[in-house]
Amino acid sequence: VQVGDVPAAAADVTWPGRLIEAELAAMLGRRLAELDFLGADAAPFGEVLGGLIRGPGKRLRPAFVYWGYRAAGGAPGGPDASAALRVGCAVELLHTCALICDDLMDGSAVRRWEPAAHIRLAGPDGGHGWPGPRPEFGRAAALVLGLQAFTWADAALCDAGLRPDRLAAVLRLFTTLRTEVIGGQYLDLVCAQRGTVPASTVRASTVPAGAGPSGAVPSGQAVPAAGQIRAAERIIRYKSAKYTVERPLQLGAAVAGGSGAESFLSGYALPLGEAFQLRDDVLGVFGDPSTTGKPAGDDLREGKRTVLVAATLTRADPSEAAIVRRHLGDPGLVVAEVELLREIITSTGALAEVERMIDERTTRALEALRSPGLDPVAVGVLTELAEISTARST
Amino acid sequence: VQVGDVPAAAADVTWPGRLIEAELAAMLGRRLAELDFLGADAAPFGEVLGGLIRGPGKRLRPAFVYWGYRAAGGAPGGPDASAALRVGCAVELLHTCALICDDLMDGSAVRRWEPAAHIRLAGPDGGHGWPGPRPEFGRAAALVLGLQAFTWADAALCDAGLRPDRLAAVLRLFTTLRTEVIGGQYLDLVCAQRGTVPASTVRASTVPAGAGPSGAVPSGQAVPAAGQIRAAERIIRYKSAKYTVERPLQLGAAVAGGSGAESFLSGYALPLGEAFQLRDDVLGVFGDPSTTGKPAGDDLREGKRTVLVAATLTRADPSEAAIVRRHLGDPGLVVAEVELLREIITSTGALAEVERMIDERTTRALEALRSPGLDPVAVGVLTELAEISTARST
Repeated sequence: VQVGDVPAAAADVTWPGRLIEAELAAMLGRRLAELDFLGADAAPFGEVLGGLIRGPGKRLRPAFVYWGYRAAGGAPGGPDASAALRVGCAVELLHTCALICDDLMDGSAVRRWEPAAHIRLAGPDGGHGWPGPRPEFGRAAALVLGLQAFTWADAALCDAGLRPDRLAAVLRLFTTLRTEVIGGQYLDLVCAQRGTVPASTVRASTVPAGAGPSGAVPSGQAVPAAGQIRAAERIIRYKSAKYTVERPLQLGAAVAGGSGAESFLSGYALPLGEAFQLRDDVLGVFGDPSTTGKPAGDDLREGKRTVLVAATLTRADPSEAAIVRRHLGDPGLVVAEVELLREIITSTGALAEVERMIDERTTRALEALRSPGLDPVAVGVLTELAEISTARST
Repeated sequence: VQVGDVPAAAADVTWPGRLIEAELAAMLGRRLAELDFLGADAAPFGEVLGGLIRGPGKRLRPAFVYWGYRAAGGAPGGPDASAALRVGCAVELLHTCALICDDLMDGSAVRRWEPAAHIRLAGPDGGHGWPGPRPEFGRAAALVLGLQAFTWADAALCDAGLRPDRLAAVLRLFTTLRTEVIGGQYLDLVCAQRGTVPASTVRASTVPAGAGPSGAVPSGQAVPAAGQIRAAERIIRYKSAKYTVERPLQLGAAVAGGSGAESFLSGYALPLGEAFQLRDDVLGVFGDPSTTGKPAGDDLREGKRTVLVAATLTRADPSEAAIVRRHLGDPGLVVAEVELLREIITSTGALAEVERMIDERTTRALEALRSPGLDPVAVGVLTELAEISTARST
């Protein structure tokens, strides 16, 4: 199931998937036309950026904006509903910037089955006809594309046609969302750079009792300071849970003018956002490249210190743990080695444990939807969105 | 003279230098407090970014915003004047992002007498206590800082207290300003990457008759396509003239609600913006490091293809031209070599020619101030700002 599809349970008019795509395409057309002043030399600027924005995204965040709007009592049609769609597009454009910058920072070469922006712009496919790869140009040009997507995000929000009395609240929330995801990314960089920090301290907030931070510290490694654990808790909260679920829902509720129903939103959003991140971690190891858009086991190659890895190291015997540590973060990892690591992650029970964590959080999120006074159609779709964002395959 | 100083000719109340600094400091204090959620691990995030924003900038763009406001009939006090100051701060915050990203893209190590953000964050001075330089962390962290400054710029504008009917026009102009400087930077990257393109084709729009694009192409080098010359014209227009002078002035005029006086603004702004860029090019070669904040002759080391360089190559004899070509872009250039290049640039008459170009453009800008109906105080200060932004030393 894709978010863009119309689910059987919902009438087309209440499901904004097609409307989001149409709005995003219209917006992109206008914005690309504004780049004409740059002339033919900059044609790849619009082509590559446009391709990324049109790309096969799940549009999860715009869906949360729209259904936050509906859950808070917003009408399914009319100018406010259009404004909610456009605010959703703003969040999607910001996400395009985030993807470009993440790949730049991580040095990731592939995104959504295609070369990442900085790779594409560096090579002959970038449209500049460079005789050979120009990695410095590619990185600088991708950064420029990211800043343009960031500008368009903000412009989309300002042009959303919001009622003047609601614009200020929406702008303030959008600044909060951006500050949180930027700050969360900074903390993530700091934690990643502390290469000596034990695996379990990263994303420690979602490590279960049996794989708790201190229990997961292998002997011989430094026990992490309490401050580092708090930082790791903040990363999953701000970089994933708030950015992907909570703030988009709140933005939608703010478009509707608020109604007191927003307090339920965090009860739904934060556990769901954690579950979403845990699912993302599982897909980064076990996901089918045809659905993840990344090479198989790419998170293992990048050495991401996820809860799944932490749980594996806690449960592994010394020889298994040594294998995991030896291979994790090796950019040259071959398929057979990825397969070996997957076997250890499964046989130790770590995978099953993380699946239980995802279930527990998803259940908690769905319980929060039982608040009285919520639009029943919104509750139905938010239930479905919870399933989509934590599904084993997308 | 610094823009922040109160000139003898203007009463303190009409000169916003101190007010801009105060507003920027107050805004920064509030914004830094909003980063508290990140905890101690991210303390360098706020420290380095705050230092850059507070840093010894000339605040030229905020001054143009304020005097665009006054020239268009805005009152010297009251809520609209405060809004003009805050919009000026927004442009200054955007400029902080531009400086961070420019240094990142150029690999420049020094900015305003201090290590550039990506250098500082990579090393022990960055506050993270890394045992040795971590250049990848420094670059990624600096990018994150740039995005935060970009976010704050936009937030400053939204929080400026603009009248609702003027907010939309100001937001639209700000998006245009950002799109132009981003696009201009992209074109600059493309031109710089075309290392084989003759020097004269870069910034060709301001090359005088005697150093015209085709005349300046040394034999044996490819004659640039007309499209490349147009791209070069666009760079100086969008990356400098519009970004530094025209759009800030128009933003100020939009805060004042417009009055028909804006048409004069472009007549003043565009030639002045070109003169500003030409002065910047001269300072990049001849400027005193104590005023430029960069090592002596840094533009020569970076190999920037400026009008000054193009004029030199046009006027130089073959042996002089060979020396210039051999040394230009050599990152290891020593002081004696910088001195030798300066002598050639001077003795060929190229420096005098560019000085004449600066004078001609500045004169043309000042003539545009003779439009009827302009506030005489604004005309006085805009005259002074023209002198400050093109002065031989700052």
